[in-house]
Amino acid sequence: MSNKIQRLEKLAKLLRYWILLETTSAGSGHPSSSLSAVEMMATLFFGGVLRLDPKNQKNLNNDNVIFSKGHAAPLLYALLAAAGIIPEKELATLRREGSRLEGHPSVVVPFVKVATGSLGQGLSQGVGIAWHARYIAHSPATTYVLLGDSEMAEGSNYEALASAAHYRLGNLVALLDVNRLGQTGPTQLAYDLSAYKKRVEAFGWKTVVVEEGHNFGKLLVAFLQARRNTAPTMIIAKTLKGKDVKIMENKNGWHGKALDQAQFAAAVKDLAPIDLKIRGVVARPLPGRHRVIAKRPPVLTNLPSLPSGPLATRKAFGVALVREAVKNNRIVALDAEVGNSTFTEYFKQYLPERFIQSYIAEQNMVGVATGLSAQGMIPFAATFGAFFTRAHDQIRMAQYGKANLKLVGSHVGVSIGEDGPSQMALEDLAMMRSIHGSTVLYPADAIATVALVKEMVRHYGIDYLRTTRMDTPNIYKPGEKFPIGGSKVLRQSKSDVETIVAAGITVHEALKTYDTLRAQGTMVRVIDCYSVKPIDTKTLIKAARETKSIVVIEDHYPEGGLADAVRAALLDHNVKVSVTSLAVKELPHSATPEQQIARHNLRQKTSRFTTNS
Amino acid sequence: MSNKIQRLEKLAKLLRYWILLETTSAGSGHPSSSLSAVEMMATLFFGGVLRLDPKNQKNLNNDNVIFSKGHAAPLLYALLAAAGIIPEKELATLRREGSRLEGHPSVVVPFVKVATGSLGQGLSQGVGIAWHARYIAHSPATTYVLLGDSEMAEGSNYEALASAAHYRLGNLVALLDVNRLGQTGPTQLAYDLSAYKKRVEAFGWKTVVVEEGHNFGKLLVAFLQARRNTAPTMIIAKTLKGKDVKIMENKNGWHGKALDQAQFAAAVKDLAPIDLKIRGVVARPLPGRHRVIAKRPPVLTNLPSLPSGPLATRKAFGVALVREAVKNNRIVALDAEVGNSTFTEYFKQYLPERFIQSYIAEQNMVGVATGLSAQGMIPFAATFGAFFTRAHDQIRMAQYGKANLKLVGSHVGVSIGEDGPSQMALEDLAMMRSIHGSTVLYPADAIATVALVKEMVRHYGIDYLRTTRMDTPNIYKPGEKFPIGGSKVLRQSKSDVETIVAAGITVHEALKTYDTLRAQGTMVRVIDCYSVKPIDTKTLIKAARETKSIVVIEDHYPEGGLADAVRAALLDHNVKVSVTSLAVKELPHSATPEQQIARHNLRQKTSRFTTNS
Repeated sequence: MSNKIQRLEKLAKLLRYWILLETTSAGSGHPSSSLSAVEMMATLFFGGVLRLDPKNQKNLNNDNVIFSKGHAAPLLYALLAAAGIIPEKELATLRREGSRLEGHPSVVVPFVKVATGSLGQGLSQGVGIAWHARYIAHSPATTYVLLGDSEMAEGSNYEALASAAHYRLGNLVALLDVNRLGQTGPTQLAYDLSAYKKRVEAFGWKTVVVEEGHNFGKLLVAFLQARRNTAPTMIIAKTLKGKDVKIMENKNGWHGKALDQAQFAAAVKDLAPIDLKIRGVVARPLPGRHRVIAKRPPVLTNLPSLPSGPLATRKAFGVALVREAVKNNRIVALDAEVGNSTFTEYFKQYLPERFIQSYIAEQNMVGVATGLSAQGMIPFAATFGAFFTRAHDQIRMAQYGKANLKLVGSHVGVSIGEDGPSQMALEDLAMMRSIHGSTVLYPADAIATVALVKEMVRHYGIDYLRTTRMDTPNIYKPGEKFPIGGSKVLRQSKSDVETIVAAGITVHEALKTYDTLRAQGTMVRVIDCYSVKPIDTKTLIKAARETKSIVVIEDHYPEGGLADAVRAALLDHNVKVSVTSLAVKELPHSATPEQQIARHNLRQKTSRFTTNS
Repeated sequence: MSNKIQRLEKLAKLLRYWILLETTSAGSGHPSSSLSAVEMMATLFFGGVLRLDPKNQKNLNNDNVIFSKGHAAPLLYALLAAAGIIPEKELATLRREGSRLEGHPSVVVPFVKVATGSLGQGLSQGVGIAWHARYIAHSPATTYVLLGDSEMAEGSNYEALASAAHYRLGNLVALLDVNRLGQTGPTQLAYDLSAYKKRVEAFGWKTVVVEEGHNFGKLLVAFLQARRNTAPTMIIAKTLKGKDVKIMENKNGWHGKALDQAQFAAAVKDLAPIDLKIRGVVARPLPGRHRVIAKRPPVLTNLPSLPSGPLATRKAFGVALVREAVKNNRIVALDAEVGNSTFTEYFKQYLPERFIQSYIAEQNMVGVATGLSAQGMIPFAATFGAFFTRAHDQIRMAQYGKANLKLVGSHVGVSIGEDGPSQMALEDLAMMRSIHGSTVLYPADAIATVALVKEMVRHYGIDYLRTTRMDTPNIYKPGEKFPIGGSKVLRQSKSDVETIVAAGITVHEALKTYDTLRAQGTMVRVIDCYSVKPIDTKTLIKAARETKSIVVIEDHYPEGGLADAVRAALLDHNVKVSVTSLAVKELPHSATPEQQIARHNLRQKTSRFTTNS
């Protein structure tokens, strides 16, 4: 046995010891799922494969490692300790309050760039990072993604496989740990390595099957092969869950269970001798040049511009995005094959080298965007607002990865008209508001849209822009400011008897109502609440106190949207006021936009004021 | 050319004519995507393949057809008109207000059992229907699912392929319409039929490739082959988008566009002669016997039962479900490979013939459940609450399909403890509240859980049950009623100075606060709001009026959950009251359940009352 392999064998024992130590100290965690991948990951880290500079996380020539099977976090922490990246003594803090070492990897851990723990997301994030290395940074870095066999049941992985092959990401290597056992029993494919191979190759990948997934010699050869391929490659390794710990090795019923102290002592005895002093060395990055951001495009002429007449905000978004991106090379755009609806088609036309066609695979689109964000890009991902529900889990995880995601949902609400409810976003505000620290923006005209796109570029975080399908006239003057958290009081007087709070399409309805009421001699206030989250509490409180009555009109289901936001803002400040919610309260059907607005009462009835006037 | 094929050719012309008529009348819609599948679907309907009784939709020996590419609805309606199932004159009402013929298929259309229109969902629904036919009804029916090539980018389809193969659903036939063009341009695989074939076969399906997808002779042979297979089979047909309409045939830029009147006239001229009188005949169902629901199980002994001591509500759910299912043969259970966490494992143990292991593929799980619901079953689908976000789009579409779905999410909130935020459902209430007509239930103890599971079985609709990971003591007495829309006033007196509204885990915290405050001489009211939607408005209003102050405590992010529901209930009735929301306002990390509750302030501070006492 070579010296190198002898060292790796010793490191594997240390990693196993630490995995057990971490989880037994914590009293919970996933030792068995960590143990199966020890040899594969030790080969990667300490077999001369992985290249990174432990002292400089920002070096874009560093390879990247993603634990898509996030529950194998104890193995990740053990690897980082063995590499001298985190202190050994920190391992005993696993899962404790205040520790960086959480149950699943979090981005405060060195070299962890994305949060994982919901399965089937790491590969998409890896596609984003590898795409950036290949097409933006031109870096020699490789991205490695550790996958569990259970998570190969998630469809998102096949979206990611397809997109990696489509973009010919030879710098992406997936490591499939086929330990046969899921949480409750055997996986769908158990040890059928050839079925995995067939599936993965059918999506345009190369594979290297390693029947002996705990054999360092075979693993070293497999990694060499993977690195030689110009296509994305998956190493498919047959392993044993709980490997080398008698009580759990290859046994069902040991998922997510830590050993107790006595079991731990017995397991350590079986592992003996353990060299507690041995440490691993990670290879340094290749010296090749890279850039952080895209090349500046050649000077582009004939950029799209805004007409002065009515324009759909979705189109204004498309214009604004390309104009921002010409000035800011960090911006990339992604679309789920509806670019002529969302109007990312301008971006594709002018800046094709920074456009990612995601086809109809929204989960992968958001996962890739999260990976791009991890590399410092500003990804704008667009599709119909309704179809972002497809990526709700990816968006949820992005919040834990502290990602900088710009999501743009078009075709919102019943006002899209004839296409019917399957295409209408009616729960997107609820979904996006519930994301921690998110920003939710809903402009009423083209000018507000352009301003808000600028705000999104400047702002770090998960921002959602809700755009409207139909053309709307301009309400604002070019150059007006639309800070995040603001609102616009469009109509007000000292004799206002009510405040209409609207956003997007309903602002136009509110203005019509204002005109009608004014002609009848009734004055109301109209507020454009373009920033649904954070909401402009101050302006709302003032209006509530002055007019005593608030009507919120939104093209959304009644729950979780603008009305909920307004009520929360007022009641959090103990403002006692009447609040009425006009929203989509019946299931919608196909009809014209005008019929939809009438049928769903997205227009305040002026008749209710006839007794007032 | 045989007589049969001559008739089919004539029918194809009529279908094309009607597709154009429908969409030109509507002024919108998807003629090009409908035209490509005309021959394939005419063969199915009128080539002697499909078997159904046009007069009896409830016959479980009817074959089923799902248009997963829902935008080809004009073709579906034309087929139904040609079969005499809907009147010809109705075709001109496409997409009009009040018409059954919406932009995408809705379940009010005869023989449409599931709503489609968000791509990549029909195959999962088809798996549910085919599973029911094979394992419950033992019916000779076949389920056919029309897929677009664009939607093959959706990962959900691969989840469905895997599950159909796993359950050996030879009674499921998918029809892939490879017309090469998506909405904005060529699809990922364009006309690479062999790539589709490889992918689909890698998931355990048989395929039949039809290079001439408009040739009735070849299509008839393909369907014969598909019906002979004992494995699920996909017919992969190469077609032309916009076929036989010169202006759009095989041309980009014609997705979702109707012809104008002049273009329509020209197209009709090209189609001439059209036999407007010809109609198709659909074959009648095979006579075989079937049953609607599962066989009664043998008398089961040793059913799990509730202990009198503390028990996690997730475990109580597991016990209740199996006890209900023994009495009700319509109940089926699905789980995403976490049955020992959600406790569907009891169901699997006692009633394996009605348990569907969905592996870690939540989208397909909900899609399959929707299909089962369409056949009259009562599907309970369980996973971690957080992971239902993965199926948000499927749940969204189920509301339009008027499905009877019972979703059960475990491991909710920060109180799960050490596993960390990726596993915590903190936005599930927001997501589920925003579904039209949904019911959202969150029991505080085992007894309430058992009662609510009974309610869910009785109630038709999309119901969500939120269960807790940790053991909780019993608050209620066995036999107590928990109607949907109710609440429980657990503590009250005439001198209450505040009402604490809680649900699930926070009810226990509220009761502790009550005890502390009472010892200090301060009386507060405690309401268990176990029905988050519909919420018990009456009880809340009474408490608001009597105590003047409300504190809502929930183990959820602040937006879209219980606090939003309480504020809406009160303000909709113009009750002016102070409402304070205690919720998870910071990003959580790993820590013990007790530390989580303290850190996130899910316990009303008793100190704020010290000046009162």
